[in-house]
Amino acid sequence: MIQRALMRRGALLALQVATEGALPPVTLRRSASSLSVPPPTCLLKPLEAPYRYLFGPGPSNVPPRVLAAGGRPIIGHMHNEMFEIMDDIKKGIQYAFQTQNNMTIAVSGSGHTAMECAIFNTVEPGESVLIAINGIWGERAAEIAERIGARVNTLVKAPGGYFTNEEIKQALVKHKPVLFFLTHGESSAGLAHPIDGIGELCRMHECLFLVDSVASLGGAPLFMDKQNIDILYTGSQKALNAPPGTAPLSFNDRACKKMFSRKTKPVSYLLDMTYLSNYWGCDGKPARIYHHTGPVSGFFSLRESLAILAEMGLENSWRLHKEVSEYLYEGLEALGLKLFVKDKNLRLPPVTTVAIPSGYNWRDITNYVMKHHQMEITGGLGPSVGMVLRVGLMGYNCSKDNADKVFAALADALKHCPKSKA
Amino acid sequence: MIQRALMRRGALLALQVATEGALPPVTLRRSASSLSVPPPTCLLKPLEAPYRYLFGPGPSNVPPRVLAAGGRPIIGHMHNEMFEIMDDIKKGIQYAFQTQNNMTIAVSGSGHTAMECAIFNTVEPGESVLIAINGIWGERAAEIAERIGARVNTLVKAPGGYFTNEEIKQALVKHKPVLFFLTHGESSAGLAHPIDGIGELCRMHECLFLVDSVASLGGAPLFMDKQNIDILYTGSQKALNAPPGTAPLSFNDRACKKMFSRKTKPVSYLLDMTYLSNYWGCDGKPARIYHHTGPVSGFFSLRESLAILAEMGLENSWRLHKEVSEYLYEGLEALGLKLFVKDKNLRLPPVTTVAIPSGYNWRDITNYVMKHHQMEITGGLGPSVGMVLRVGLMGYNCSKDNADKVFAALADALKHCPKSKA
Repeated sequence: MIQRALMRRGALLALQVATEGALPPVTLRRSASSLSVPPPTCLLKPLEAPYRYLFGPGPSNVPPRVLAAGGRPIIGHMHNEMFEIMDDIKKGIQYAFQTQNNMTIAVSGSGHTAMECAIFNTVEPGESVLIAINGIWGERAAEIAERIGARVNTLVKAPGGYFTNEEIKQALVKHKPVLFFLTHGESSAGLAHPIDGIGELCRMHECLFLVDSVASLGGAPLFMDKQNIDILYTGSQKALNAPPGTAPLSFNDRACKKMFSRKTKPVSYLLDMTYLSNYWGCDGKPARIYHHTGPVSGFFSLRESLAILAEMGLENSWRLHKEVSEYLYEGLEALGLKLFVKDKNLRLPPVTTVAIPSGYNWRDITNYVMKHHQMEITGGLGPSVGMVLRVGLMGYNCSKDNADKVFAALADALKHCPKSKA
Repeated sequence: MIQRALMRRGALLALQVATEGALPPVTLRRSASSLSVPPPTCLLKPLEAPYRYLFGPGPSNVPPRVLAAGGRPIIGHMHNEMFEIMDDIKKGIQYAFQTQNNMTIAVSGSGHTAMECAIFNTVEPGESVLIAINGIWGERAAEIAERIGARVNTLVKAPGGYFTNEEIKQALVKHKPVLFFLTHGESSAGLAHPIDGIGELCRMHECLFLVDSVASLGGAPLFMDKQNIDILYTGSQKALNAPPGTAPLSFNDRACKKMFSRKTKPVSYLLDMTYLSNYWGCDGKPARIYHHTGPVSGFFSLRESLAILAEMGLENSWRLHKEVSEYLYEGLEALGLKLFVKDKNLRLPPVTTVAIPSGYNWRDITNYVMKHHQMEITGGLGPSVGMVLRVGLMGYNCSKDNADKVFAALADALKHCPKSKA
């Protein structure tokens, strides 16, 4: 009996520790050896998740092929076959971004992780940055830059607004930033910001051009190299249709030069590109050194998503999003709804914003379609809350059939949701 | 024809921009409208990943049930059903950690993300921290704390060494840290560090006790509340057998008090617990506000892993790891191998370290079992490279059958790998 008691780990440790003879009394207590928290009964029920039409701004529905890839037995994050899969992902991102950049990776995290990774690595404390804010993403970028001690200057427009190249030029002259942040697909407002010429302006003013394409990539034309974008990132869960959790990110040589000649270390070890570039085989070194454990299943899914895009062709994907979005505009207008972004050419094909119909509470409408049509359509986000409804038909979801489902659900909601007489 | 040309997005934007009449010449170029990077041929081949026995220090094999959960159609990250799943995960983590802490979440990322999250939120620039380094994880924690401007003090032992409570007490007195970091399961050395009494010492010295249990959770007894651990985190891909990409993390009231009364904002917006606590429904506010898009599939898998642990029972899981690891020790010794951690009671049941057999190159052995047995057994990590081989039988992989496979593979490797005559 005594022996059995001694075999208990806690007692043994206490004994061993006690024999060292130099410990405060608190350590002589026996190890806590019985459970005080019982197994939760909720976990004894099976996982349940309804089927939903994810027609909001993302995540969007994941095609069976991508789900199957993500559900495959995993291998180790440092196995040679994993490195090959990562190399394939790298090539797929280069294609999707239209870039030859060697420094092209997928960050282990969401679009926000890529945003932090981009800013953390290219900006040092005390440096000036310029952030274009016309929705939530610019707000977030400003917040991130501020936290690492950058001097944050902003250009601000209301949701739906955009910045002319002249406005950007003047701000570059005034603030002399080392980095200019712009959102290509402003999903909170449904705006696709014009990109042409901005990269050239940034070069003239010795500034890096950082573009967020989370909501636009694959759904609207974007050419990283030709448009002189220095840093570009996106997310996995929009037009790429992978589950959220991985985020493509690329840096060109200008960005690498700044990033790898910095004087201070980035605040995050996890997001330090010195290590991530090695993990992704971008640093030219013969061996990849363990840095962190990447999301193996997430990389399987991301590779499959990029394979679908490569098979379909980027231009076909852009064309499809344009066609379906135009079909969507017509149908929404036929329901008497008004599109939030007036200029068709500034609309973001993957995410369409609709002005909240007069007399309705937007929450009634989104709740109604969720409850009666198992469909996600969302309200605004950040500064656009209360201004818009948002319909996203992205990648796998991008079809006229799905647009028809949206029309039916919204017509039903408009009929049944309470309307004030105002 | 002219109209069709004008319909092209680039041309239209150029026109629109031109009419504003205030732009530099560079913006008048037509948008780059053709692809310069072709679809990569590697992506036109199907995804391939071999079946592997993942008997290294993790990730470990994922059971079919967990793979199936991760491969289910996703729902939105802000749907009510998702919040219910997150609530279940929270309860599962409370059980696995043996804690009643309300501030219990899963971070969207690997164990490293949880490590950064814990340190970023509880330490401010200029504050003193104490880090116990007896393998790679302490080194990493020190690096992270240094980057955010903490005054980093270390206690250092060679891999396999551990710290007595008296040593820890003296260091607490000397350095007056706000936080003490210790690794419970030092997977690079195969050591399970004694925990009893340290939490009490930290309380006496007004210091938070942060414990890394990435490699130990579910495989060795640990009682967050009873052992007075203030902050505890783990990873999903070890004894929990989910794919890598989510990381359970819990803070007690002492930790919350420090974390939520800080003067500076944490450097990371993404890892700011003010927002993460709301996202996980831990802040008592009625509504959850969008912060970032969590890894929906990863949360499905994590819930399933925690359900398996709840069904099995934590004590049964600890017992199983202890039994199988003892069986493993015997078999390894029967092959003439020597265990790296001499004291049985300090060995980490989920990850066993073996001294590299005399005359062999460790890489030959790991390469051999990978090639001929499709089995991952690894070398050391960080300071233990060249000192050990590591065998991990965790969770789903934790069985005597698998230990037998390890014996067969190692016996074969020892027979066929070159041996110097020394």
